[in-house]
Amino acid sequence: MNENTKKIISKSVGEIAENYDSSDILMLRDEAPLPDRNAVIEIVKGVRSVMFPGYFEGKVSCGAEPEYYIGSTLTELYEKLLRQLTLAFLYKKKRNVSDAAARRRAEEVCDGFFEKLPEIQRTLLKDVEAGFDGDPAAKSREEIICSYPGFLAICVYRIAHVLYAEGVPFIPRIMTEYAHGATGIDINSGAEIGEYFFIDHGTGVVIGETTEIGDRVKLYQGVTLGALSTRDGQKLSGKKRHPTVGSDVTIYANATILGGKTVIGDGAVIGGNTFITESVASGARVSAKAQELDIRTGRIKDIEYYI
Amino acid sequence: MNENTKKIISKSVGEIAENYDSSDILMLRDEAPLPDRNAVIEIVKGVRSVMFPGYFEGKVSCGAEPEYYIGSTLTELYEKLLRQLTLAFLYKKKRNVSDAAARRRAEEVCDGFFEKLPEIQRTLLKDVEAGFDGDPAAKSREEIICSYPGFLAICVYRIAHVLYAEGVPFIPRIMTEYAHGATGIDINSGAEIGEYFFIDHGTGVVIGETTEIGDRVKLYQGVTLGALSTRDGQKLSGKKRHPTVGSDVTIYANATILGGKTVIGDGAVIGGNTFITESVASGARVSAKAQELDIRTGRIKDIEYYI
Amino acid sequence: MNENTKKIISKSVGEIAENYDSSDILMLRDEAPLPDRNAVIEIVKGVRSVMFPGYFEGKVSCGAEPEYYIGSTLTELYEKLLRQLTLAFLYKKKRNVSDAAARRRAEEVCDGFFEKLPEIQRTLLKDVEAGFDGDPAAKSREEIICSYPGFLAICVYRIAHVLYAEGVPFIPRIMTEYAHGATGIDINSGAEIGEYFFIDHGTGVVIGETTEIGDRVKLYQGVTLGALSTRDGQKLSGKKRHPTVGSDVTIYANATILGGKTVIGDGAVIGGNTFITESVASGARVSAKAQELDIRTGRIKDIEYYI
Amino acid sequence: MNENTKKIISKSVGEIAENYDSSDILMLRDEAPLPDRNAVIEIVKGVRSVMFPGYFEGKVSCGAEPEYYIGSTLTELYEKLLRQLTLAFLYKKKRNVSDAAARRRAEEVCDGFFEKLPEIQRTLLKDVEAGFDGDPAAKSREEIICSYPGFLAICVYRIAHVLYAEGVPFIPRIMTEYAHGATGIDINSGAEIGEYFFIDHGTGVVIGETTEIGDRVKLYQGVTLGALSTRDGQKLSGKKRHPTVGSDVTIYANATILGGKTVIGDGAVIGGNTFITESVASGARVSAKAQELDIRTGRIKDIEYYI
Amino acid sequence: MNENTKKIISKSVGEIAENYDSSDILMLRDEAPLPDRNAVIEIVKGVRSVMFPGYFEGKVSCGAEPEYYIGSTLTELYEKLLRQLTLAFLYKKKRNVSDAAARRRAEEVCDGFFEKLPEIQRTLLKDVEAGFDGDPAAKSREEIICSYPGFLAICVYRIAHVLYAEGVPFIPRIMTEYAHGATGIDINSGAEIGEYFFIDHGTGVVIGETTEIGDRVKLYQGVTLGALSTRDGQKLSGKKRHPTVGSDVTIYANATILGGKTVIGDGAVIGGNTFITESVASGARVSAKAQELDIRTGRIKDIEYYI
Amino acid sequence: MNENTKKIISKSVGEIAENYDSSDILMLRDEAPLPDRNAVIEIVKGVRSVMFPGYFEGKVSCGAEPEYYIGSTLTELYEKLLRQLTLAFLYKKKRNVSDAAARRRAEEVCDGFFEKLPEIQRTLLKDVEAGFDGDPAAKSREEIICSYPGFLAICVYRIAHVLYAEGVPFIPRIMTEYAHGATGIDINSGAEIGEYFFIDHGTGVVIGETTEIGDRVKLYQGVTLGALSTRDGQKLSGKKRHPTVGSDVTIYANATILGGKTVIGDGAVIGGNTFITESVASGARVSAKAQELDIRTGRIKDIEYYI
Repeated sequence: MNENTKKIISKSVGEIAENYDSSDILMLRDEAPLPDRNAVIEIVKGVRSVMFPGYFEGKVSCGAEPEYYIGSTLTELYEKLLRQLTLAFLYKKKRNVSDAAARRRAEEVCDGFFEKLPEIQRTLLKDVEAGFDGDPAAKSREEIICSYPGFLAICVYRIAHVLYAEGVPFIPRIMTEYAHGATGIDINSGAEIGEYFFIDHGTGVVIGETTEIGDRVKLYQGVTLGALSTRDGQKLSGKKRHPTVGSDVTIYANATILGGKTVIGDGAVIGGNTFITESVASGARVSAKAQELDIRTGRIKDIEYYI
Repeated sequence: MNENTKKIISKSVGEIAENYDSSDILMLRDEAPLPDRNAVIEIVKGVRSVMFPGYFEGKVSCGAEPEYYIGSTLTELYEKLLRQLTLAFLYKKKRNVSDAAARRRAEEVCDGFFEKLPEIQRTLLKDVEAGFDGDPAAKSREEIICSYPGFLAICVYRIAHVLYAEGVPFIPRIMTEYAHGATGIDINSGAEIGEYFFIDHGTGVVIGETTEIGDRVKLYQGVTLGALSTRDGQKLSGKKRHPTVGSDVTIYANATILGGKTVIGDGAVIGGNTFITESVASGARVSAKAQELDIRTGRIKDIEYYI
Repeated sequence: MNENTKKIISKSVGEIAENYDSSDILMLRDEAPLPDRNAVIEIVKGVRSVMFPGYFEGKVSCGAEPEYYIGSTLTELYEKLLRQLTLAFLYKKKRNVSDAAARRRAEEVCDGFFEKLPEIQRTLLKDVEAGFDGDPAAKSREEIICSYPGFLAICVYRIAHVLYAEGVPFIPRIMTEYAHGATGIDINSGAEIGEYFFIDHGTGVVIGETTEIGDRVKLYQGVTLGALSTRDGQKLSGKKRHPTVGSDVTIYANATILGGKTVIGDGAVIGGNTFITESVASGARVSAKAQELDIRTGRIKDIEYYI
Repeated sequence: MNENTKKIISKSVGEIAENYDSSDILMLRDEAPLPDRNAVIEIVKGVRSVMFPGYFEGKVSCGAEPEYYIGSTLTELYEKLLRQLTLAFLYKKKRNVSDAAARRRAEEVCDGFFEKLPEIQRTLLKDVEAGFDGDPAAKSREEIICSYPGFLAICVYRIAHVLYAEGVPFIPRIMTEYAHGATGIDINSGAEIGEYFFIDHGTGVVIGETTEIGDRVKLYQGVTLGALSTRDGQKLSGKKRHPTVGSDVTIYANATILGGKTVIGDGAVIGGNTFITESVASGARVSAKAQELDIRTGRIKDIEYYI
Repeated sequence: MNENTKKIISKSVGEIAENYDSSDILMLRDEAPLPDRNAVIEIVKGVRSVMFPGYFEGKVSCGAEPEYYIGSTLTELYEKLLRQLTLAFLYKKKRNVSDAAARRRAEEVCDGFFEKLPEIQRTLLKDVEAGFDGDPAAKSREEIICSYPGFLAICVYRIAHVLYAEGVPFIPRIMTEYAHGATGIDINSGAEIGEYFFIDHGTGVVIGETTEIGDRVKLYQGVTLGALSTRDGQKLSGKKRHPTVGSDVTIYANATILGGKTVIGDGAVIGGNTFITESVASGARVSAKAQELDIRTGRIKDIEYYI
Repeated sequence: MNENTKKIISKSVGEIAENYDSSDILMLRDEAPLPDRNAVIEIVKGVRSVMFPGYFEGKVSCGAEPEYYIGSTLTELYEKLLRQLTLAFLYKKKRNVSDAAARRRAEEVCDGFFEKLPEIQRTLLKDVEAGFDGDPAAKSREEIICSYPGFLAICVYRIAHVLYAEGVPFIPRIMTEYAHGATGIDINSGAEIGEYFFIDHGTGVVIGETTEIGDRVKLYQGVTLGALSTRDGQKLSGKKRHPTVGSDVTIYANATILGGKTVIGDGAVIGGNTFITESVASGARVSAKAQELDIRTGRIKDIEYYI
């Protein structure tokens, strides 16, 4: 490293150190680290493995007693989750909460989480059915469990939702962003989603924090259930900002449905590429408009596709 | 772990064990594991490496004789693929097929796959050309091979398609879902796709199982070539459900084209954000409609963009 | 391996070796390897870690002096980047440039890059503010830094842009494709993007090479700022082909805006799922058209959503 | 790689291929690989972990029920050991034994091994006592378990001995050579060793295949219990060739005791650096002779140290 | 797994769980894990790397300022060591010491350790000189640092000795057993060893806890400086049990010197394979006796080798 | 980290930086790193794998043509060795040799090394025979190849010796110290060793740089073929300092034989624990003296064991 480079590095080192001082979010304190992203993802994968034994990470056999496998896996997961929950509560409330109180709260949440696991597993088995019934390209239920990104996203959402409901900071977001990165499906852990839910292909799907969805709903790739934009974001925090979708609704690819007052009635079918900011009646069908130019005649005709 | 937590864990262990018993897809048997996802992905990467030496995973030089490198890599890949194929045939047909028969079938498929590799390589070189000609932002052909997600997705599709055509269960899906996760491009391995194919950017592209695509077709991000939704999914299994796209067609971003009877004629240009469920004539241009609100006058005018 | 298989392998080995000979991009020479994708990604992660200490990869404390941590990290990163830059310059210009000249050019670029780091860090802190103000679902600024894919993509873009501006081959592309793969957001490193930039959710966003974007712009998932398609790609290389977006613009999900002459005026709001190939006035609001079929009456009505 | 180098490589490739053909131990057949060394070592470590929970590889807590941890670990170990045993029986007897027969034999041995585990654990706890009583430098029993090479070697020997007794090929040797490499202590798995056995420091200790050792014996580093040399090795295979050591014997560092007829009587003390090829009576003390040169007077005197 | 095997596993699980209950060293409590062996070894390697930059683990350059590298490495090491020290103090004294007190004691020891590091480094540089002067086979000082097992063992000893002197439990032993495993040289961290110390080859060397060694001493492989055996081990704990060796002494291979009252005077030369349990005068030379059998004549003569 | 600790760290950082400045072996320059220890060990393992296919690291099958496997492995090894040789020549002679000259010299040595590989392989096959004939505990030749530490040490020695003979710095030492660490057998790469060489058990064996050994020699654990000690080490560098051992010699455990003029005649048998500094005639047998104390009578008798 020549002298000039050394000078440049030294100068940048000094400036970055100044930047650290200038922002209270840059100089994280030793005693209160954030939850660890990789550890949280490992927890999600572990929970998934125990709910669907033999599908992931090479674990095939439960051996002499399935209880051995389930019990030892849950024990390990309990300790890992407890540690991350404690970090989350300490970080978020660091000025108001003692170590012991954060630990106690983490134990409460952790206990509740493990109590709900069998129920989550049963719900996910219904989501597998929804996928198998909804996709002729699925060759088997097993394929859905081990390969379908939509199922991965729902699985992670259902796990994260339990923690969101307990007001856990950071961790539900880390979980759903892991699924988002892996699948392109962004389900906020705050959404309320019914049974037999299926997302086909899924890339680009967004389901916002205050979305409500009924039973037997099917979404295709690129569907947004979002909020209208705001420039004063934090003032709307906690308010209902995302649509309510009834039961037995189908929403085709790339439909964009926005707003907290927007209700999609039961049984409605929303066409692809629509942009919807008002409610749609039960049983209605909505489709986008297009036009076709006949290149030989130069004539343009409206085309209105039905679904 | 305190006594209450121990009780909660024990109870959940018991319930999850019951869930295992209640579903025939949860208690995977020792003797018939699923193909291993990571192993399948390693095979895809290995095949890609040998077709494009020097681009991936640090392999640069072929040394004394390229045959050494190619031969040893193919030998390793053959054994890995044979093992995964055997697992796939055993799992799928486990009640009807002996170990030896599954192994024989796996050998047949494996032999056929390696016989076709040089041809696949030549086809992919044409896809590189299509990318270089189709994207002014491409600085070199090398950049397309090593960085373009569209090329990765096509490469994996062309590999997986050979196995799909032989009726291999699970593995083609695992391959294309790997590419889907890495690129956001979901090409079902059953699709039939011609030469000089290019997908630009690609996130959100979906190409369904029974899609047919001609030569020199170019797709942008978010394009769906999909099926109309069904609630009786498995009855349509194996039926033509996805569009037929001619040669020399360009389809802009986020166009959604659905249905097994929908034909996009040769040379057509489909505008972005269109939703199409009927056929489009050769050479036609289709575009979506929009409206513009002049915020000062309050007037709304239709806008019809041409492409 | 039986004799038939051996024959098949040998034949394919021979054909692949012939394919190597037939294409000048397949037989990479020992002396001029491409930059290493994994190494480049490690550099991006390292730069991100030093700008946001404590958020990534377990590094929490700066210990006795933050300068120790910053200085040692920058030193390591300098060496790694220098090596990859040298490879990039050698490969690209291999016929015209000596090793020493490539190394010298790499040092120049590397020095410039490290000089700009503190400024990039300050700009990114403004992007964090934009995210916090723009998203009511954000529980804290920390969450944006550690979890938001939009922030990851902008961060990588701002790093890669410095190298793009110096004409570095391969490396800026590898960087932004890494972010693209992780987030579904594809920002070409050539784009010019102002301050307080926020992309929400982000999957499917495409921002082309010659795009210009003002300050305080907010994009949602699936937005394309792209070029019109061309079949003679390389002739347009370097030309302005992508839109210009003013300041204070909001663009909703899945809007597709194309063309080098297309200007979106300051303060405009572009509705979701629009397809736009012409300029939009300052302050205008553009939205897509749709129609709704009342399934009971069979009547269709146009619906024109406002935003 | 220049042309000359290419020629050299090609020539060596050919010659090595010829060497493969010339020796029946070089061209291992696909169908019958050797047991995997790393897998065998992992089994040893796993068995050790379950016998001494919390000491190795980070496992600390048994959680809700110790049975979960023990059961799941034994299940995993059972499958791993079964696989290696099957390989061992197939390789060794490949001409005479069917796959199914090898598998059955492996199951028998594996069952027996896991049945004996609790007993091995109890014996090892006595060895810990022997170490704690025999070494004033031991600060705690825990230190012996987690750090003492002598204890590691005995632990591995007691595990391997069960498999040796069942005539398992390769695997007992791989196990004891793992301990040999880690500690410098080479205990052949065929030796018969009593309770409360302690080896202090241990580097260089050799205990041959047909050695017999009583209870409460203590060895120091460098002690050999070996065979007289032979040039017709295989003729002596299976014959008693190594010493018999009674109970309550102490053998100091670097003593070399050879021969199948050599008996060291109960309670004997063997001095360091002795070379012994005949029996030693119970209670006897044996020590080496030395001489001291007084450098000032030039006089030499015999020195006979007592122990 | 067949039913019989399941029964065997279940039975062993139960017995092992009983064994856990029967021994207070087997059921390690959650709250007080042992220090982590791998973490301790990483600390040793880290300290070694910072004292000898460029020799180990790929670190070559100190970049802009050596202080960056040293400072960031020491900071990381401080945190790691502090954590392991806290665990060690908590475990050892768990009934008497609060978490806070253990942490405070750990900080004291850690501070002292890092204060002494530069001095240790200077002492080790003298040991390098001793090696270079003492071994004609050493081609350079660098070779001694990066390859000589004797130097590794001394380096680890000098690090561990600082912690031993502070009464740290477990950790000094883990450190020296790491070196013992890697080199076959077992130096108890309690020994007192002077400057310019050199161990050549080293396998089998044992230096006991209460050994004292002067300056400029040279040991060969297999040398034991040990204690006389005892069956009441713990009663002698803390007593002087190992030899005192003066300055400028040379001890040849495999010499065994035992006992706390045994003094080897300054400048003495101890021949190989001697067994010594009494003091040797300054300047004396001691050698073992042997006899030679003339195989042709059958005659035996005493041979007394001088050194 | 509290303020006091920060001060201590800062002070130590400064002192260590001073230590760097004070010694010319501590501040390694960027441009001339030492060869990489791990890379050199990988080369040794790779060479071993190609000579004994199927024994190590999971490689079992040579597939279609053994030439593929051999050729690709040698190509990879060639490049790795070439890089390390270049580093070694640059470091050692850094003031006198250009990069290009170092590279040329490295190529020469590398070419020679790969030319000799098939011959080394044939010699090692003879060493396997020597082991099988010499050890009744060997159950098969395969066991010797995959498990015997003596064979590992000889294998590494024969590889390293070729490089020693070419005057390569550092690398032969790194190789043999790797074997030393793994087996406790320290064979200097400079020694000259004949065919059919066998070392049984091996821990503690030392064979010095100028040792010469004939054919069909057998050594046991702890045997030293060493030099007399010197305090002016470097003056003797390159001189004959170690014994000459004839053919058909057997040397029992822990014998120490020293000096460059010491010759052990053909067919001699050296007893265990002897210390020999003068020549031994062909066919002679040498054994150590001991004495036995009858604890009941108090009488001492000389014992002279024969071998």
